[in-house]
Amino acid sequence: MLNLKSSTAPWWLERVEDNLEEILLDHAHCEKKAAGTAMNLIFAYVDRVDLVRQLSPIVTEELEHFQLVINLIERRGMRFRRLTPSNYGQQLGELVRKLEPGRAIDKLLVAALIEARSCERFGLLRDRLKDRELADFYGSLFESEARHHATYVQMALLFGTEQVVFARLQELAEQEAEIIDRGDPKARVHG
Amino acid sequence: MLNLKSSTAPWWLERVEDNLEEILLDHAHCEKKAAGTAMNLIFAYVDRVDLVRQLSPIVTEELEHFQLVINLIERRGMRFRRLTPSNYGQQLGELVRKLEPGRAIDKLLVAALIEARSCERFGLLRDRLKDRELADFYGSLFESEARHHATYVQMALLFGTEQVVFARLQELAEQEAEIIDRGDPKARVHG
Repeated sequence: MLNLKSSTAPWWLERVEDNLEEILLDHAHCEKKAAGTAMNLIFAYVDRVDLVRQLSPIVTEELEHFQLVINLIERRGMRFRRLTPSNYGQQLGELVRKLEPGRAIDKLLVAALIEARSCERFGLLRDRLKDRELADFYGSLFESEARHHATYVQMALLFGTEQVVFARLQELAEQEAEIIDRGDPKARVHG
Repeated sequence: MLNLKSSTAPWWLERVEDNLEEILLDHAHCEKKAAGTAMNLIFAYVDRVDLVRQLSPIVTEELEHFQLVINLIERRGMRFRRLTPSNYGQQLGELVRKLEPGRAIDKLLVAALIEARSCERFGLLRDRLKDRELADFYGSLFESEARHHATYVQMALLFGTEQVVFARLQELAEQEAEIIDRGDPKARVHG
């Protein structure tokens, strides 16, 4: 269902357990970036009303999650602050083709894969985190990440045939798996 | 309450009556831009949690209005499309100072003035448009524009004293009045 080509390695969960504060901060920024990505797509493809209609509620939902993570951070006595992102988003961004309609398809499928990876990892956190309050929190976000993944794939189908879109999704998913398997030295949601 | 230094001239309403389709299209894009402006402020000042908390619901509300205008356009058998903006936003943007905290104060006060001008003009449309369905529609948006104006002024007060912020608001309002009085050859919400 998530179209991912690899499962998260055990070292990631260990690193999360050792760096919960950094992961929460990074997670807040990921939700902000997800809202920004959906907003940028609205601006880029504003005359595609069918697209805009599906993107607007995603912006709202990501901002709500952003706020939930900030609230959680503050409830735990931490201060929300800026944080260097993992290299994951940038590396995925480099895979986006320059010419339309490939550009639109790739942007939407990259967004779909990021949602899928978040979903997979939130599922892990829900099932395995020792901190049960956090585990429940990640469980509560699992469904919307899965739904956003499906919505982004559906939106890509506005720009190409099923054959074209799903072939490209396979290609991008292979590359996403390579990027996530290489990892990032920092403790991040997509590290 | 709206801190404006001029009232909209009668020629504007006449031009609106003669160009309802263009005004509706422009209005949709204004709501989109208002959402984008609030989102950009979240990105620029993300570590100011007090600011982010007030900006997130503005993004959501502007996107909802954007969707309402698009729906209205489609119900009237028109096609939503791209449109050259008026020069109003760009001219106001040039007034923003480069150095913080002046930059933050100016960005927030310019946003406040744009909301105020929309509010004033939506009030005119509510009271005077011959098309009563549209008049009611603009009446329904009046309150949120006034509220957003007040919220943006409040947010500016996070970056400066009352004295500093209200003095700058007076200056910017004078310049906004000059810009709006000069007008724009195109039929636009802020034309």
